[in-house]
Amino acid sequence: MQFQEIIAHLGKTAKNNSLSQKPSLNPHLKGVAAIDKADSNLISYVEGGKFKTMIATTKADALILPPDETLQNQALVRDIAWIATPNPRLLFSRVISLYYQPFKPLPSIHPSAVVHFDTSIGQDVHIGANVVIQAGVTIGDRVTIHPNVVIYPEVNLGNDTILHANCTIHERTQIGSGCVIHSGAAIGSEGFGFVPTATGWYKMEQSGYTVLEDGVEIGCNSAVDRPAVGETRIGRNTKLDNLVQIGHGCQIGKNCAMASQVGLAGGAIIGNGVMLGGQVGVANQVTVGDRVIATGQTGITSNVSSGEMVSGMPHMPSRLYRKLFVMYKRLPDMYQMYKESKKQT
Amino acid sequence: MQFQEIIAHLGKTAKNNSLSQKPSLNPHLKGVAAIDKADSNLISYVEGGKFKTMIATTKADALILPPDETLQNQALVRDIAWIATPNPRLLFSRVISLYYQPFKPLPSIHPSAVVHFDTSIGQDVHIGANVVIQAGVTIGDRVTIHPNVVIYPEVNLGNDTILHANCTIHERTQIGSGCVIHSGAAIGSEGFGFVPTATGWYKMEQSGYTVLEDGVEIGCNSAVDRPAVGETRIGRNTKLDNLVQIGHGCQIGKNCAMASQVGLAGGAIIGNGVMLGGQVGVANQVTVGDRVIATGQTGITSNVSSGEMVSGMPHMPSRLYRKLFVMYKRLPDMYQMYKESKKQT
Amino acid sequence: MQFQEIIAHLGKTAKNNSLSQKPSLNPHLKGVAAIDKADSNLISYVEGGKFKTMIATTKADALILPPDETLQNQALVRDIAWIATPNPRLLFSRVISLYYQPFKPLPSIHPSAVVHFDTSIGQDVHIGANVVIQAGVTIGDRVTIHPNVVIYPEVNLGNDTILHANCTIHERTQIGSGCVIHSGAAIGSEGFGFVPTATGWYKMEQSGYTVLEDGVEIGCNSAVDRPAVGETRIGRNTKLDNLVQIGHGCQIGKNCAMASQVGLAGGAIIGNGVMLGGQVGVANQVTVGDRVIATGQTGITSNVSSGEMVSGMPHMPSRLYRKLFVMYKRLPDMYQMYKESKKQT
Repeated sequence: MQFQEIIAHLGKTAKNNSLSQKPSLNPHLKGVAAIDKADSNLISYVEGGKFKTMIATTKADALILPPDETLQNQALVRDIAWIATPNPRLLFSRVISLYYQPFKPLPSIHPSAVVHFDTSIGQDVHIGANVVIQAGVTIGDRVTIHPNVVIYPEVNLGNDTILHANCTIHERTQIGSGCVIHSGAAIGSEGFGFVPTATGWYKMEQSGYTVLEDGVEIGCNSAVDRPAVGETRIGRNTKLDNLVQIGHGCQIGKNCAMASQVGLAGGAIIGNGVMLGGQVGVANQVTVGDRVIATGQTGITSNVSSGEMVSGMPHMPSRLYRKLFVMYKRLPDMYQMYKESKKQT
Repeated sequence: MQFQEIIAHLGKTAKNNSLSQKPSLNPHLKGVAAIDKADSNLISYVEGGKFKTMIATTKADALILPPDETLQNQALVRDIAWIATPNPRLLFSRVISLYYQPFKPLPSIHPSAVVHFDTSIGQDVHIGANVVIQAGVTIGDRVTIHPNVVIYPEVNLGNDTILHANCTIHERTQIGSGCVIHSGAAIGSEGFGFVPTATGWYKMEQSGYTVLEDGVEIGCNSAVDRPAVGETRIGRNTKLDNLVQIGHGCQIGKNCAMASQVGLAGGAIIGNGVMLGGQVGVANQVTVGDRVIATGQTGITSNVSSGEMVSGMPHMPSRLYRKLFVMYKRLPDMYQMYKESKKQT
Repeated sequence: MQFQEIIAHLGKTAKNNSLSQKPSLNPHLKGVAAIDKADSNLISYVEGGKFKTMIATTKADALILPPDETLQNQALVRDIAWIATPNPRLLFSRVISLYYQPFKPLPSIHPSAVVHFDTSIGQDVHIGANVVIQAGVTIGDRVTIHPNVVIYPEVNLGNDTILHANCTIHERTQIGSGCVIHSGAAIGSEGFGFVPTATGWYKMEQSGYTVLEDGVEIGCNSAVDRPAVGETRIGRNTKLDNLVQIGHGCQIGKNCAMASQVGLAGGAIIGNGVMLGGQVGVANQVTVGDRVIATGQTGITSNVSSGEMVSGMPHMPSRLYRKLFVMYKRLPDMYQMYKESKKQT
C-alpha cells in the first residue's frame, strides 16, 4: 500500500488531521512496526516519552505523529512521510487493521466436539476440536469457540463472542455479545465461600451466577467467581488483563480497565471508567467510585470517592503518597537530629 | 417452602436458636438472596457491617439474624419473619442447600475419555468428555472428573473428590477424599528448581510428589508444585482460593484458608488454622505458626510465632503496623519542625 | 547403589572434591531425601542456614557437604559417609538424576489428537491424547506434547521441547529447542492493547508474535503476551516460575530467573542474568539492567542500572531500603519528641 492509499482508507478520521506537506512523499509501505524496530517501507507512530527522540534515528518511511510542529519538522527533514493526529496510537491501531487480519476459524463444528443435544446454536458458529458443551447452553450467531473449551450447563453466549482455547465457562454464566475470553480463563467458578465453625470450614454452596455484559474482555488464566446468592457482574466494555481475580459477588461498572494480577476480594463494588494498575488489591465489600485510578500494587482497603487517584498500601491520594515518600527518604537526617537533641537533654 | 418448614428442616441447629415471636409470620419462600437484592418471597441474612442498616429497606420476607434484640425488633416491626443464631452466615448456608443442588453429572465414563487400561476406578465415578487418565492411576468411589482434565501417571484420588474442567494433576500426586480442584489448577507440577552454575541454570529434577489431605480445596488456576525430594503437603480441610502459588516442598497445616493470589515460596512451613489475606507473600523456608493471620499484601519474610496477626512488608505485628502508619502520615509536620530547627542552628 | 558407586558415576565433578576419609563407609543408598526427612539408606545434602545443624540428627547414611571441616567432622563422628563440594546443591541434583527418571511418554501420536494436514512434524515426537495442532505448525525432533494442549496456526517448536498438559500456544509463536512450557501456560496470547476514545476502548489488533529462545522454561498458568507490532522475546535459558505475567512487547535477556507471580507490564526491557523475587512488579516501558536483583514484592517503577539490588515500592537500593525501615520503626520515639518540643513552643 502507498502512504496516500492508507490515508484514503482511514477516511473521515484522517480528514481532521494535518498531513505531511511534501506530496511527493508517498512511500510504498509493506507493514507496521514499533519506531525503534522499524525498517524502511514500514509505518510507525510516536506518542510520548522516550519514543519522541527516535524520530531522528528511525528507519521507518512513514510516521503517525501528535500535533507537534517540532516533531513534524524533524520527520520532514529526514524525508519521512507523516500524518498528525491528537491520538496517534488510535490511528496506528487502524493502520494495523489494514495490514493484519486476526486468525478466525471458519464457521463449522469439529466432529470431535462433544455438544449436548439440548443446546441452541446460532448461525455461522465455529466450535473447535474437543470442545465440550453441556445441557441447556445457548450460543448466539458468529460465535467462535476455540479448541478444548469446556462449557458447563445453562450458559448463554451472545453474538460474535470469542472463547479462546482451554478456558472454562461454569454453570449459569451469562456472557454478552462481542466478548472475548482468553485462554485458560475460568468464568463463573465457585466463589471462595467457607464459614468457620467449631469443626472446621463449612462449604457455602455458590448458587449464584456470573454476568459479563457486552464487549467485556477477560485475560488469560483470569478467574471470575460466582457468588453464594445473586450475581457477580462485569459491566459493558470493561477489559481485564491476564491473571486477574474477581471475587464472588463483585459488581464492576462499564469501561473499566484492570491490568494484570489485579485482585478483587468478594463483594467489591467498582464504578464506571475505573483503571487499576498491575497487582492492585481491593478488599472485601469496598466501594470504589467512578473514574478512580489506582497505581500499580496499590492496596485499596476502604471506600474511594469518584475521580480520586490513589496509591500505596493502605491506599491514599497519590499526591499525598508521593509527598510522604519524599519525607520518608529524609528520615535518616531527621533521625540524626533526634539522636543529637536527645543526647543534649 | 414455608418459613416454618425451613425451620423444621434445619432441625437441631435451629432448635438452639430463638425464633420470631409472631407464629403467624410464615411466608412462602421461593429462594435465597443477598439482603440488598432480595425481593419478597425470599429469605436473606444479616451478619455485620453495612448490612445491618438494610433491615429497614429490604424486601425479603424472612431474615436470619444475629442474637441482637434491636435488629430482631426492626425486623418484627416490618413484618419480616426471622430466626436468630450466633452464626447467621452458617445457617444461611444451610438454607441455600435446601433450595440449591450443585451441578453434579451422573456416574458414567464418556466414550471420548482416554483412560489407560492400567488404572483402578471405583464405584459410581463420573469421567467427563476428553478426560485423559494415564497409567497407574487409582480413583476412589463417587469421584467426579469434569471434561478435559488430564491426570498424569500414578496419581491417587480419594472418594468423593471433584476435579473441575481443564485442571491438570501431575505424576505421583496423592489427593485425599472430599477434595475439590477447581478449573485450570495444576497440582504436583515440577518445582522451580534451578541451580546456578558457571554455564547457566542446571535443572534439578523434581523427583518428589504432592499430597493433598482430605477435604482440601484448590482454587481456579492455582499451582501446587512438587519438590526435588520428598513431598509438598497441604493439610486436612485447608482451603485455597484462585491463583494461589504453593512452592515446592511447602508443608501446610490443617484448616488454613488462603485468599486469592497468595504466594508461598519453596519450603515454607505453615501451621494449622492459618489465614492469609489476598496477595500475601511468604518467603523461602519461613515458618509460620498456628492460627497466624496475615492481612492482604503482607510480605512474610521471616518466622512468625503462633497466634500473631501480622501486616506490612516486611511483616510486623498488625498493631505496630497501624501505629507506625499513623506516624507516617505525620511525617510532613515532623519534617517542617526539623527544617526550622535546622535553620536555627 | 553403593556410596562409592555414586561417586564413580559423578565422574569428573566428584574428582575435584574431597571424600570422607573412612573408606569403610560405603553404605548402600536406596535414594535421595531432604536432610530433615531422610531415613537410613538415603543420601542428602547440606547447604546453608538451618540445615547445617541437622547433621547432628539426620538419619541419612550419606551427605553432600560444603568444604567446611567442622561440618565434615560432625558427619564423620556420626559414621555418615560424605563428599564435599563448593556447590552441594548442584551435586545433589546430579545424584537425584541417578535415581530418578522424569516421566516421558514414548514417541507416538495418539489417535485422538487432531493434527492439521499442513504441519511438519520431526522424528520421535510424542503427541498426546486430545492435542489440537492447527495449520502451518512446525515441530522439531523429540518434542513431547502432553494431552489437551492446543497449538494455534504457524507456531514453531524447536527440538526436545516439552509442552505440558492444557497449555495453549498462540498463533505465530516461535519456541526454541529444549524449552519447557508447564501446564496451563498461555504463550503468545493477545497483548492488553486498548486505546481510550470518546466512545470507549478501541481494540488494537495484536499483529506481533512471541519468541522464546532455546532453553526457556515457563511455569504453570503463566502468560506471555504478544504485542501489537514486533515481538515479545524471552532470551536463552531464562526461567519463569508459575503465574508470571509477561506483558506485550517485553524484551527479556538470557539466564534470568523470575519467581512466582512476578508481573511485567508492556514493553519492559530486562537485561541478562536478572533475578526477580516473588510478586515483583515492573512498570510499563521500564529498563532493568544486567544482573539486577529485586527482592520479593518490589515495585520497579523506573529504570534500574546493571548490577543493582533493589527493594521496596517504589524500588530503591536494598541497602537504603533496610536503613529506612530501621528509621521507620523509630518513628514513635521521634514523634514523641516532636510532640513535646511543640508543646514548649
